[in-house]
Amino acid sequence: MTGAKEIIKEHIAKTVTLTDEQYDYVFSHFKLKSYKKGQAIITAGDQVDCEYFVLDGCLKAFYINDDLKMFILQFAMPTWWASDYNALYSGAKATINVDCITDAEVLCLSSADREKLCSELHQVEYFFRWRTNKGYVAAQKRLLSFMNNDAKHRYEELLKMYPQLYNMVPKSLIAAYLGVSRETLSRLYQREK
Amino acid sequence: MTGAKEIIKEHIAKTVTLTDEQYDYVFSHFKLKSYKKGQAIITAGDQVDCEYFVLDGCLKAFYINDDLKMFILQFAMPTWWASDYNALYSGAKATINVDCITDAEVLCLSSADREKLCSELHQVEYFFRWRTNKGYVAAQKRLLSFMNNDAKHRYEELLKMYPQLYNMVPKSLIAAYLGVSRETLSRLYQREK
Repeated sequence: MTGAKEIIKEHIAKTVTLTDEQYDYVFSHFKLKSYKKGQAIITAGDQVDCEYFVLDGCLKAFYINDDLKMFILQFAMPTWWASDYNALYSGAKATINVDCITDAEVLCLSSADREKLCSELHQVEYFFRWRTNKGYVAAQKRLLSFMNNDAKHRYEELLKMYPQLYNMVPKSLIAAYLGVSRETLSRLYQREK
Repeated sequence: MTGAKEIIKEHIAKTVTLTDEQYDYVFSHFKLKSYKKGQAIITAGDQVDCEYFVLDGCLKAFYINDDLKMFILQFAMPTWWASDYNALYSGAKATINVDCITDAEVLCLSSADREKLCSELHQVEYFFRWRTNKGYVAAQKRLLSFMNNDAKHRYEELLKMYPQLYNMVPKSLIAAYLGVSRETLSRLYQREK
């Protein structure tokens, strides 16, 4: 994909400054991959070795419970990262699935390469620390709105984080992200108009 | 408190190895503080500048909603960290409260000192990156069990994480952590015996 390096460079540059040579070096550890709409990237039970930076398209990270009900942990739009981080960090088998809501282009970074880059370049370690700090805070906020059973708040947060989502994603998936029924989603959606 | 330096040293050494001089240097940035049972450390609305490493006692991080209902995000036992991380990382005012369930001894680290240490010592940056990685995964697991409405699973996770909790913490607080009523907690508790 044209511009892949520029997209990840711009993303990293929001947190740290690297030289052009350092960007080239960092970028050389990423693998470009293309997926079709509906294609699985991680399936529950897999060994997980990579995390994925989205260049184009939209992924979802989701969990299927024993009753086959789907819960969406995350949508990943361009410049977002996705993986099963529990599996990635611990070496356990995946419990989360990641697949493509649309055709997608991603950059794939292996755990070994992430650790190598963090060890070789202190600024890259800083970048990944702050990326996870932000992810941690976002997960805590989402947890609180689930504890508080506040679907309206979750809906507003979702619109704020992903303003373009309504045109890209079926309403059934948005309901699965919010943890509400399609009917409740329709009520929230009407209120917003 | 005697042994404060040994406790944090042992905690950090699980992730990285520092020299004795580096431990001394890192430790010199922590401030020892003592709190009484019930005392507030962070109150919603505060400016948050520190995170807290528990040496002794038990803290809780909690949110109070508009109906004055309490939701417990986290218990912090010895060697756990607590703060309002959204406020700490973003500079926003606190929305989370942190107070003491028992008398407590903590080590307090300011944001400025954390960033200084991370910048000066690459291994400290590594330590904090992995601490947050683990926190992120724990928050995601907890989120999934809330989405899945699986109080039994949350109860079992809680017992696994904090086996000594039942002797330290009133049942009403455990219910506020699980997001269930006291009656539901009693049922889960009976089943376990």
